[in-house]
Amino acid sequence: MENENLIVETTTVAERMDTLIEDILQLLEEKKYMAARQMLLENNAVDIAEVLEEIMDEMDVDRAVIMFRTLPKDISTEVFSYMNSEDQVDIISAITDSEISYIMEELAFDDMIDVLEELPANLVDKILNHTSKEERNLINTFLKYPENCAGSLMTIDYVELSRDMTVAEAMAHIKEVGIDSETVYTCYVKDRGRKLLGVVSLRALVVAPDDAYVEEYMHEDIQVVNVYEDQEEVSNLFKRYGYLAIPVVDNEYRLVGIITVDDIMDVVEEETTEDIERMAGVIDFDDSDTEYLDISVWRHVKSRLPWLFFLMCSYVVTGGIISGFEEALSKMVCLVSYMPMLMGTGGNSGSQSATLIIRGMSLDEIDPSDWPKVLWKELRISCVIGVLLSVLNFGRICLMDGEGAMVAFAVSASMFVIVIAAKSIGGLLPMAAKRLGIDPALMASPMISSLTDMVSVVTYFTMATTILGI
Amino acid sequence: MENENLIVETTTVAERMDTLIEDILQLLEEKKYMAARQMLLENNAVDIAEVLEEIMDEMDVDRAVIMFRTLPKDISTEVFSYMNSEDQVDIISAITDSEISYIMEELAFDDMIDVLEELPANLVDKILNHTSKEERNLINTFLKYPENCAGSLMTIDYVELSRDMTVAEAMAHIKEVGIDSETVYTCYVKDRGRKLLGVVSLRALVVAPDDAYVEEYMHEDIQVVNVYEDQEEVSNLFKRYGYLAIPVVDNEYRLVGIITVDDIMDVVEEETTEDIERMAGVIDFDDSDTEYLDISVWRHVKSRLPWLFFLMCSYVVTGGIISGFEEALSKMVCLVSYMPMLMGTGGNSGSQSATLIIRGMSLDEIDPSDWPKVLWKELRISCVIGVLLSVLNFGRICLMDGEGAMVAFAVSASMFVIVIAAKSIGGLLPMAAKRLGIDPALMASPMISSLTDMVSVVTYFTMATTILGI
Repeated sequence: MENENLIVETTTVAERMDTLIEDILQLLEEKKYMAARQMLLENNAVDIAEVLEEIMDEMDVDRAVIMFRTLPKDISTEVFSYMNSEDQVDIISAITDSEISYIMEELAFDDMIDVLEELPANLVDKILNHTSKEERNLINTFLKYPENCAGSLMTIDYVELSRDMTVAEAMAHIKEVGIDSETVYTCYVKDRGRKLLGVVSLRALVVAPDDAYVEEYMHEDIQVVNVYEDQEEVSNLFKRYGYLAIPVVDNEYRLVGIITVDDIMDVVEEETTEDIERMAGVIDFDDSDTEYLDISVWRHVKSRLPWLFFLMCSYVVTGGIISGFEEALSKMVCLVSYMPMLMGTGGNSGSQSATLIIRGMSLDEIDPSDWPKVLWKELRISCVIGVLLSVLNFGRICLMDGEGAMVAFAVSASMFVIVIAAKSIGGLLPMAAKRLGIDPALMASPMISSLTDMVSVVTYFTMATTILGI
Repeated sequence: MENENLIVETTTVAERMDTLIEDILQLLEEKKYMAARQMLLENNAVDIAEVLEEIMDEMDVDRAVIMFRTLPKDISTEVFSYMNSEDQVDIISAITDSEISYIMEELAFDDMIDVLEELPANLVDKILNHTSKEERNLINTFLKYPENCAGSLMTIDYVELSRDMTVAEAMAHIKEVGIDSETVYTCYVKDRGRKLLGVVSLRALVVAPDDAYVEEYMHEDIQVVNVYEDQEEVSNLFKRYGYLAIPVVDNEYRLVGIITVDDIMDVVEEETTEDIERMAGVIDFDDSDTEYLDISVWRHVKSRLPWLFFLMCSYVVTGGIISGFEEALSKMVCLVSYMPMLMGTGGNSGSQSATLIIRGMSLDEIDPSDWPKVLWKELRISCVIGVLLSVLNFGRICLMDGEGAMVAFAVSASMFVIVIAAKSIGGLLPMAAKRLGIDPALMASPMISSLTDMVSVVTYFTMATTILGI
């Protein structure tokens, strides 16, 4: 076959990485370090970083450090920037001061800040001692930005042009400084007071005549973000407008840095994880290292216990309601066996609605002011679903359980009411939370279930005792 | 104040849009069309598209079409590309053939394909009649790609260079064709057989000397995706490696298109929504228009009923288990009032674990082969949580409910066992699902809750009857 080496790779990244990691670990086991190095170097720095992390986890830190040191210097810096901060600290602690200095100098500014943020204070001091006073001041400013704001995401490695440059001059300037910049695709123009005047894209420069002026191709009416803007809002801007980069300004509209799209991809992932975890009643882990297996048992307990405890307490009310019906129940214990079904279906119905509304609000598709439309929709949906489930239930109980038509009717009628109530609560509660400034993600399944459980129990026992006359 | 007009905007996009929409609707109400047009034109095309959609929803399609037609032609095309497909069909149905042709010609190729995919067949035929035979063939090929594959995301508007061009020639070529390309920041080199040889970034060209050859700056060892690759895998590549664009090849490694990062942002959002919905037992809505309020009641029912029904049936088992304990229960009806708390806490405990594992797997942080580590971690976490919740419970029941120490002990001991069982099930089930090729997202809250409810009931009644000797 002529094209054998051109057959398109169809393995997924995960599969490819599994094989690579297995092979490398095998080579290290056999102490074939140079062969392992050779195999590593055929891969992207992102992948090399993952392999090193695996070596740390599966074997030991020493062997990972040995492999790290065998890498060419420029590659090792890039690999370092992709490792998670815990492993970065391990590497830093094991290598020499001059190796540390080299890495810090070569790292992109934003990556260096990320590393410094996670290092223990004594290591940070050691590193800062090697830098100039000016750079130290800049680093200290960056280190002071709160973790989830625009300032913590930005870089200062952008290309600056002046408005009275010609296109040819601008291109020459980019050629000169471009190699050290985070992006050359968007360039920035400032006035003498460091205020942002506008941006010009490399694309515009490339298609412009050489003797035109930068000014003519500069956009002045541009979206900027404040350095203290929340990262979620910043990522919304990228998603909405498809930017490759966005300028960051301080309160005086002075350009202090830029944020590029590749750093935003990570933010999107982080924010989604936070949302999903909150929706399951897990409190956010408090730093950026949130890989399940790396988190200690105590931190897991700390992030899970509060909601479990709070929700458990809410069941005291539900329990109390049931106690009120104890006498009726003792006359007809068979009613108890339908309780889990009614509570479960209520909880599931409510969660479905709540999830759709929470997601819709986080994508800006639904606004709390839409609540009458949402309620009207949920009412119609739940009527249809309620009728269908009730009828099926009625049939099943009559046929299979032989409890008699009245019990079947009491259960089915409760089912109908519970589905409607649960879907209304599930639809409205997240919107109410947002209106009150509470994160709607907290109104997902666990919260909704415990509320609908209460409603289900009240509905069921009230209707059953009434219908059955007990 | 000198800098008054430079104060940094701190309103969020959502707030700004609310005000804009309100103002425009007000102007239209007063029939001030030109003022509305003026106000609209001060905004980004993305925002104009949203305003038009709001006009359709809140007022009528006619007025939206009037506003659409007042826009300058180039802007109206861009606005059109950002509208959702339902609204695009409304616009297309209301404007003239020549207006349609203009829009179709001006749209980027990938946007045109997206539009054609959603239009009714007769409109598609009408549009295709206006195009050349060659273009018609190309369009038909693109229309045949399945909805969620790389082929449906790609565009053919990329810049092609040849390997023996000099950098200066390449830059001149980009200057010529760049304006119509989706991106100029990555350029592609093919051989005579249209096979992909490599890519070269504009950044590399810009910093390269003019008389160097493209070949020298070309990367040959590049990541490509097959045209039928699933979009989720494509978006994983973008997230992992921070690409701005990725080439798409067919089975013969011929370059057929490229995918750019801005289109991937939408995919990430779509895939996340799908995951979150599945985790709440909502079946994916079957096309790309999934705004909650735009989906009909019947489609909502269709996507929610199956899981509700399936889970409801699973409670037949739980009900059966309870029936088996009816005699014991009738001796001690007070036991019933603790059932919701035990089932609820079991469900919540299980959901927390399941959610963390599902998310971890979808971020490739956890692999099904890690199951012993996950189980060991969950066992330790659940022991700590189980002990704490049990002790608190024991105290509360003794103090508040006055049920006596044996009942309190039976409930608390059950709580301990249930938390451990629920967290183990929640941790392991998603991994088992993945191993079996089932989407782990389906093993989230609803599924886990109904399973843990069964376990809770069995555990509680078995332990209570044993401990209390009833």
